[in-house]
Amino acid sequence: MNLWFTEEFGIVGGLRQQVKIVRTLHSEKSEFQQLDIFETADFGRMLVLDGIIMCTEFDEFSYHEMITHVPMMAHPNPQKVLVIGGGDGGTVREAIKHPTVQEVHLCEIDRRVVDLCVEHIPSMASKLNDPRVKIHYEDGARWVKEHPGTYDIIIVDSTDPVGPGKVLFEEPFYQACKGSLRENGILTTQAENFLLHTGLVGELISFGKKMFKTPGYYYTLVPTYPGGMIGFTFFSLSQGPFEHFEAKLAKKEYKDMISSMRYWSPEMHRASFVLPASIKKKLVV
Amino acid sequence: MNLWFTEEFGIVGGLRQQVKIVRTLHSEKSEFQQLDIFETADFGRMLVLDGIIMCTEFDEFSYHEMITHVPMMAHPNPQKVLVIGGGDGGTVREAIKHPTVQEVHLCEIDRRVVDLCVEHIPSMASKLNDPRVKIHYEDGARWVKEHPGTYDIIIVDSTDPVGPGKVLFEEPFYQACKGSLRENGILTTQAENFLLHTGLVGELISFGKKMFKTPGYYYTLVPTYPGGMIGFTFFSLSQGPFEHFEAKLAKKEYKDMISSMRYWSPEMHRASFVLPASIKKKLVV
Repeated sequence: MNLWFTEEFGIVGGLRQQVKIVRTLHSEKSEFQQLDIFETADFGRMLVLDGIIMCTEFDEFSYHEMITHVPMMAHPNPQKVLVIGGGDGGTVREAIKHPTVQEVHLCEIDRRVVDLCVEHIPSMASKLNDPRVKIHYEDGARWVKEHPGTYDIIIVDSTDPVGPGKVLFEEPFYQACKGSLRENGILTTQAENFLLHTGLVGELISFGKKMFKTPGYYYTLVPTYPGGMIGFTFFSLSQGPFEHFEAKLAKKEYKDMISSMRYWSPEMHRASFVLPASIKKKLVV
Repeated sequence: MNLWFTEEFGIVGGLRQQVKIVRTLHSEKSEFQQLDIFETADFGRMLVLDGIIMCTEFDEFSYHEMITHVPMMAHPNPQKVLVIGGGDGGTVREAIKHPTVQEVHLCEIDRRVVDLCVEHIPSMASKLNDPRVKIHYEDGARWVKEHPGTYDIIIVDSTDPVGPGKVLFEEPFYQACKGSLRENGILTTQAENFLLHTGLVGELISFGKKMFKTPGYYYTLVPTYPGGMIGFTFFSLSQGPFEHFEAKLAKKEYKDMISSMRYWSPEMHRASFVLPASIKKKLVV
């Protein structure tokens, strides 16, 4: 059998990714979107929402570690974390590794994403039943408006700006996230490929520069995404990305977590903020 | 018209890249390989050898700057440079920007690659007629054997380890390149995607570790390659990648070159050597 999944609906234009499929594990149209889970030939199980590759078991670590540990390590004492989107559970799995964490709230609009990942991709979803985790099946944009001054870290682990995720790439949402942070809070959002969508990334950064004391942008490598890489905004109410993390490295309660990491490292924490010369000039982070 | 080029013959297995094509500019079978040049929808002109994407006008800067300027900036005084493969001219174009350079030899086995790039992709090939450049239409593996102790920098700007490029990924070739370097010489080679071909990259690094005082490995982002990224070996007879480049930054003859760069920067020079935690452990560079 020669079966290839083609990412057709991305925002990449004249570039498409194809992934070889062994079989379809599940396919349904939920209230919000089309959900598909495949067994791939080389990359383990793969979650696809509205035709866009969300993650594969092969390389999800690079996405989930970097969207989570960069803001978490940058914050002096993250206790209360909100993940918007992220129904696959990968970001929650990383966030609860931090010894300071008391609560992780997952705000996922589509209950079916959580149910299907618990069933088919337990390597990502297995920590969703941790007692510190609370799942809210709600609209993330509304949730942050209704919970002002609540979170130390907000991570927007969203799809692309199409379908239900579109509002998560607009300025009012960033403003509402800012309002939902506590003192020293940090907002990190999935923020596309800076080489392929430089204009969109520039717009997202411009929101943060207006609202946050310390804006930043960094990236990680994800070979199963078209373009092979994805960026994240780092918007902080006070400290920058590098002021606190080295003090944490010295503490013994971080030792096991750090040695278990597959992508994040102290060197990578710094290197991931280094952008190509021409992109740095265009984005003026 | 809805025409997509599919990279079918890569070594990536269950992952394929598709690029939208406007028209075919040239297609032929030379003595050595199949050559195609396309006008793409979003990435300018694209060179394809034996079905494998070599470069597009959109993102070739990230490949050619990084394969060239990292070893060139690391060397205290590069005068004589050999480029093996690289018939598109992009690496030569970057190498002759360095004020210390006296000669750049291009050793390309297939004269048709050079001819077609001069005709169809002058943005890459335009510097091949510089008086410091000499083109040899020869087998690179034989060339280095016949020219011992000759070059300060050897850059292997090859295709993947299939077809005529296969010998360029084998240990005897690395040994011959070492023999063709002068004192303080540096060998840099195109060395695949470390996330998708970790085993192959590990093998290439193992050659260098046996032969060179200072082995290293770094990477650049190329969104039109499958996996979106490509790595390079950095094998040096003496100095490491970071000992000399900062002294050069202070010199005024480097100022224009550095400010014209689109990918390389002093920060990127360092950051490009930082690999994900688990890859660093596996490769033990």
